[in-house]
This record gives sequence, structure tokens and C-alpha cells, in this order.
Amino acid sequence: MKLTALAGGVGGAKLVDGLAALLPPEAFCVIVNTGDDFEHLSLKISPDLDTVCYTLAGMANPETGWGIKNETWQVYKTIAQLGGPDWFRLGDTDLATHIMRTALLCEGEPLSAITQNFCQEWGVSHRVFPMSDHPVRTMVHTNEGKVLGFQEYFVQHACEPVVSRFEFKGADEAKPVDDALRRLNESDLVVFAPSNPWVSIDPILAVPGYRESLRGKPVIAISPLIEGRALKGPAAKMYRELGIRPSASAIAEHYHDLLTGFVFDERDRGELEKIERWRIIPLLTDIFMEDKQDRIRLAREVLSFGQTILSRSH
Amino acid sequence: MKLTALAGGVGGAKLVDGLAALLPPEAFCVIVNTGDDFEHLSLKISPDLDTVCYTLAGMANPETGWGIKNETWQVYKTIAQLGGPDWFRLGDTDLATHIMRTALLCEGEPLSAITQNFCQEWGVSHRVFPMSDHPVRTMVHTNEGKVLGFQEYFVQHACEPVVSRFEFKGADEAKPVDDALRRLNESDLVVFAPSNPWVSIDPILAVPGYRESLRGKPVIAISPLIEGRALKGPAAKMYRELGIRPSASAIAEHYHDLLTGFVFDERDRGELEKIERWRIIPLLTDIFMEDKQDRIRLAREVLSFGQTILSRSH
Repeated sequence: MKLTALAGGVGGAKLVDGLAALLPPEAFCVIVNTGDDFEHLSLKISPDLDTVCYTLAGMANPETGWGIKNETWQVYKTIAQLGGPDWFRLGDTDLATHIMRTALLCEGEPLSAITQNFCQEWGVSHRVFPMSDHPVRTMVHTNEGKVLGFQEYFVQHACEPVVSRFEFKGADEAKPVDDALRRLNESDLVVFAPSNPWVSIDPILAVPGYRESLRGKPVIAISPLIEGRALKGPAAKMYRELGIRPSASAIAEHYHDLLTGFVFDERDRGELEKIERWRIIPLLTDIFMEDKQDRIRLAREVLSFGQTILSRSH
Repeated sequence: MKLTALAGGVGGAKLVDGLAALLPPEAFCVIVNTGDDFEHLSLKISPDLDTVCYTLAGMANPETGWGIKNETWQVYKTIAQLGGPDWFRLGDTDLATHIMRTALLCEGEPLSAITQNFCQEWGVSHRVFPMSDHPVRTMVHTNEGKVLGFQEYFVQHACEPVVSRFEFKGADEAKPVDDALRRLNESDLVVFAPSNPWVSIDPILAVPGYRESLRGKPVIAISPLIEGRALKGPAAKMYRELGIRPSASAIAEHYHDLLTGFVFDERDRGELEKIERWRIIPLLTDIFMEDKQDRIRLAREVLSFGQTILSRSH
């Protein structure tokens, strides 16, 4: 079975890590949101891409959910002393990634090739694709009429502004990474990782080509919400602000016409009927991932769920 | 007495440090070579400017002659692990300077203003001016026809290529920093610090305006050579390769028509006659600067020499 995952940040990275532990590199790859990429101190930063790569490399900081474990902060501290911005924390080891990426992008190397080289150095054998080599920028429109870049909204404003809609600037002109689209086309099954639908999965689907490639292909989404709460990040808050009750079924409805199966938490059993009514095949389980064992357990359940779905459709 | 120094790297920075210990900020400033500025890993690096500032701030690494003391190397080591270039060593604290400078330059702030702000943060009260806010690049032409950027020649090739001439790319279109030229015009005395004439002082003089401002003004140069050897750097080697015997008198001849006085080492007393023949007023002393006391002693001698020259000319 060949599988491709679409993923954003921390939650998505955890499931991807579990799937990578079970599937060989030729059978599994991941396409990562780059809508929250941004420039900070003239450095080109790809937060979701790094989170997925660092997680797969076993380098991720488990306490923060971002950055690298056992990190030092000499550059960051010195920049702050020089009057520089301190709202986006950049560890020394992490900074090496951003400096190298910026230098290579400026030399004209595509982000996908840079990421592939980094993954080789980090000992990550599964392919991790940025959704595009073209810049796409998730802009958060707020109810006060302000438009914020995603990191500005997410880190600098700590998700406080009330959102009214999202815009994926540059998506229309962006192209999927060739190898990513090819791998997606060759996949038997596609998994939407438990990431924020609005700002992690939607930006990927906004790049022309991916959505088309999903038509007629079994897609399984894993809910990023349990009992209406996001395990991490502003997903639930965003649903509320957009006038939708945050819930497992709201996630399923979000992806609606694309979904074949939906994995959500036992604690949300009350939503089963609604989801079945939409002819989406449900899998109720424990979707909380505390440690590596949890990631592998959930990944294994997703895989066997996928196999069931595939056998049904034949 | 108002004094302006022209300076390049390590030797120049030491004398500047001695002068700054003796003169208040309103009476002394320094104009620094930026011909060896370059881009490395997309970071904008100003080696001479940093050497002078770090030295004045008491932050300079006395062992290397460049960089910051008690430095850490996490980013540099990680960049090398990622396959990045390792020929130019960048400490973590030093990197903060380059990252901030790059970000501010990209925002359109002039290098002179950036340097002024950094100096404030570093507790440097004397003004340190880059020679220009416009990029000037010292190119080293070699006898094999190759043209190298200065840092490429200096660090990557360890000064090994044989030089045939120097070119200061962009100098014709560059402008002096307004405040630097004003301070130079207001100066009673100008000092050429013991820096490499070819690649530290000549690039400054190549910026239209500075040379003109020196006409009719007493100028004292301090030799960067003792017994034909450079205390640091490739000055002696360059003279030889250009067919000139490296010596105190070769330095004096280099600046020839600009010089009123020339400070050189007791050990080069044999060249006294030659220098006097050119109607340059000589000062023979110990020009070697081992520690802070030496810097202050030499600076004091230069100042009193300057006063003698000024009183003679009135």
C-alpha cells in the first residue's frame, strides 16, 4: 500500500512520525504546509516543514512542540541585546537551518531540493515535500479589518485577534512540487494528518493540482480536536470565531466531499451518527498522542483502517 | 585638537583604541574601510568595521585578532554539518551582529546608522563611520588573471595568490558618509592608522571626497611594518609581489603627497634619511602594540607628535 500524508505542524508531525516508523520510504511520504513560512530578520523560515523534519529526525523539542531539543540561545539573546525582535525564538542549532536555507534559496535552489538535502544530513529517509517551491502566504483576516501574516497572528499576537477568513496569497500561481504530486498520484491512500484544517491542510489543497489528484482516491482525515478542543493551537478558537461549533463532525464537514474515512476520538462518539449520515466511514479510537508508542499505535490503526477501506472499495 | 583616524583591521583598531582612551568623543572619530565587506551565507559582513567596534567595546578576541572573546560556535558547527561552507568562521555572538545588520540593511537603513546604533548598545561612545553607505568591494587581481573578492583572497585562499593590482569596485559611484566627511573636514589632524595601505587605507581614499578633504590638512601615518614585516596580514607580501621592497619608507612613499608626518619603528632608523628627503616629518619610536598600555603609549606619542606638527605649521 502506498500512502501520502498531508500535514502541518506538531500534531501532524507526530502521526507522520508514527507512519514513518511503520512504512518504508518508498511507500510513504509527506507533503507539508508552507503557508506559514515567513521572513524574520531577513531569514527564510519554514516552521511546519522544520517541525515535521525535526520530528522525523528525532531532534524535535518535545516540551515546546517547536525547535530543537538541547538547544542553546546565544544568537537570539545577543540579537535582543542589540535591539532586535525577540517575539520569535530562534535557537542556535535551529538558526543554522534557517541561515543555510536562506543562503541556498538566494542561490536559486528550490525549497524541495534544500529540504531533501537537509533530510539526508538529518538521517530522515522518508521524503518530506514542501507543498510548493513557490511562496504561498497564509494571511489571517481579522474582524477588525486587519490582515496579519500567519506567524504574526500565531506567535506575535498569540492567536488573540478574532479571525474572519483566511487567504492563501500566491496559491493560485503556485505549482505543486513535481515529485510530491507524482507520489500523491501513485498513492493508494491519502491521509490528512491531525492538523489545523484552516491553516495547515487548506493551504496545501489551495495549490492547484493536489485537490484534483485526490478525486476518486480514498482519503482518511484524523481529527485534530477532542471534545471540541484542539490538542494544540488555535483550531477550535478559529471554528468558534467563524461561527461553527468546534467538534469532530465540524472537521469531517470541513473536508466533506474529499473524505472516505474519518478517525476521531472515542470521547466524541456522540458525533458518530452525523458523520455516518454523510457516508464517511468512521473509526473511533484514542487519537491522543503522548509518546512515540502512541504515535505508532495510532498510525497502525490508521493503516489497518485504510486497508479495510481499500478492500471495501475493490 | 580635533582628530580623525582612517583605519582598517586589527593593527588600526589597536591604535584607534589607544586614541579613544585619550580623546573625548567630540574630538576623535574613525572612518573605517568597508572594501572588504562581503556576503557570506546571504549575511552582510563588515570585517574591519566589526574589528574596530569590537576592539573599542573591549569585546574583541585578543588571540585571533577577529571576532569576539568567549565566543560559542553552535551555529557555525551546525552549518558545517549541514554541508555549508566552513572557511569563514562565525561565532554565535558575532553572528547576531551580522544577522541584525543584514536585516536592517534589507529594511533600507544605512550602514552608518546601523553601526551607530550597535555602538550605542556596545557602549562605544566615539563615532565609528563606515567609509560609505554604498557598497565598495576590494577586488584582488592575481598574476594568474583571476580576480578574487578580498575575503576570498584573505581567508579562503589564505593570501596565497600573487597579487598584480587592486580594484575598488563601486568606489567611483560611492559617496562618503556625510557626518564622516564633515568630521574629517573639521579635523585639525588626520591619522592613517597602522593598517594595510593597499587594502585598508586606499579603499577609503578611493571614495570621492575624502582625498580632497585631506589637501592642506596635516596627515600622520603610522607604519604597519617593522623591519619590512607586517605585524599582521599580507601587507609585506603584497609590496613584494608588486615589485616594491616592503619597508617603512615604502609605506611613506605610498602615501607620499598626502603625508605631513610619519611614525615608524626605531628598528627602521636606517630609512630616516630617505623619509626626511621627501620633507615628511619623522617620528621614530616603538610602534609594536602588545597590550592596552602599548596602545595608549603609542596614541599619546602620536598626539604629541601631531601637536608639534600643528604648532610648526602655525
